[in-house]
Amino acid sequence: GYSRLGRSVHGLAGAAEWPAIRALLPDLAGKRIVDLGCGFGWFARWARAHGAATVLGLDLSQNMIARARADTDDAAITYRIADLERLELPAASFDLAYSSLVFHYLEDFGRLARTVHRALVPGAPFVFTIEHPIYMAPTRPGWAIDASGRKTWPVDRYAVEGPRTTDWLAEGVVKQHRRLGTTLNTLIGSGFAIRHVEEWAPTDDQVRQTPALAEEMERPMILIVSAQR
Amino acid sequence: GYSRLGRSVHGLAGAAEWPAIRALLPDLAGKRIVDLGCGFGWFARWARAHGAATVLGLDLSQNMIARARADTDDAAITYRIADLERLELPAASFDLAYSSLVFHYLEDFGRLARTVHRALVPGAPFVFTIEHPIYMAPTRPGWAIDASGRKTWPVDRYAVEGPRTTDWLAEGVVKQHRRLGTTLNTLIGSGFAIRHVEEWAPTDDQVRQTPALAEEMERPMILIVSAQR
Repeated sequence: GYSRLGRSVHGLAGAAEWPAIRALLPDLAGKRIVDLGCGFGWFARWARAHGAATVLGLDLSQNMIARARADTDDAAITYRIADLERLELPAASFDLAYSSLVFHYLEDFGRLARTVHRALVPGAPFVFTIEHPIYMAPTRPGWAIDASGRKTWPVDRYAVEGPRTTDWLAEGVVKQHRRLGTTLNTLIGSGFAIRHVEEWAPTDDQVRQTPALAEEMERPMILIVSAQR
Repeated sequence: GYSRLGRSVHGLAGAAEWPAIRALLPDLAGKRIVDLGCGFGWFARWARAHGAATVLGLDLSQNMIARARADTDDAAITYRIADLERLELPAASFDLAYSSLVFHYLEDFGRLARTVHRALVPGAPFVFTIEHPIYMAPTRPGWAIDASGRKTWPVDRYAVEGPRTTDWLAEGVVKQHRRLGTTLNTLIGSGFAIRHVEEWAPTDDQVRQTPALAEEMERPMILIVSAQR
């Protein structure tokens, strides 16, 4: 598989799905943005470089926020340590909510969705990525080779929502599996309109440049959702 | 697996997902309904028994339409042979569009979605089921048992949209695989709002009554979508 660590080292350019996310973002000029799970601040800085008025970057990790602050010299970007499970945001204060690969750690996505809905102005987009539930569902997420030599992704427990424990990067990381439908229905129930649902796959050009990406055609790893208050 | 033939023999009651579909239907009283792929007319007759004003049932199969007509004695139900790939419907003439397990045979779902959108009155629901793309995607759709004895559904080619040929019921049946996101984006692009996305799974009660349904927890076979013009 291709390394997701590329994201940390190379920022947005290190994430193969970034062009697809970017295509779903509105013109950022003058926008007040909240970045839910901002990590090292790559998106916050990119957004400011593309005209955003302000960016509020939130992350649970003290280390990430410390590094984000160290890497940023911009008074219009604020970083804050925050637990998204208990997030409070001022009402109708943001023109865009963004999040990359964080919400699949949340136990209560409904609470977060309602909080974001209140925090956005009417019509504002909410664009986020999560690990795709096909990727997350299995008891043992990983490739298998069948008798005919085909590479497959053995799915089980898709309808069994709840915690999945993996040992990727760190041991015992707990993710929260939800069916794709559940994520969308939670957004709809929180007042959002669904605008676009992208089960990300690489383009032909990307596969030519990075042949290891070809396996992403077999099963989706990343889900990109664009919703609108 | 549980037999889908139950649908033909027992009608709606023979489809385990029927209670979930029914929960998404509006009050049918006085509604003008179009049933896209009406088969033997089970839904058409049920809808009339529940107050529908009229039902137009469409199916490609001459045999199914003949049997539907033979089994129906109701001047408010019209059955017609129709190819959904080339369907024409009068504008703003229906209060509900319904379809069960047919659209995954269509090559051009976008054309159908636009046709249905025009045919519905503003605010009218469009409720349908298709085979779930997780079920349809694989080169060889079927269960596998892994080294630890787990039953899994090996997924491959999820992002490769297009024909899938299977030998279920009849040899060489061609289905059209689309990602779940593609189906939703096609609806959105046709003017529909997404209201509910259900990757059907049995209830605990259903599994108790029909233990063979337990495998449906491992991977979804049926996708239920409720959209609204």
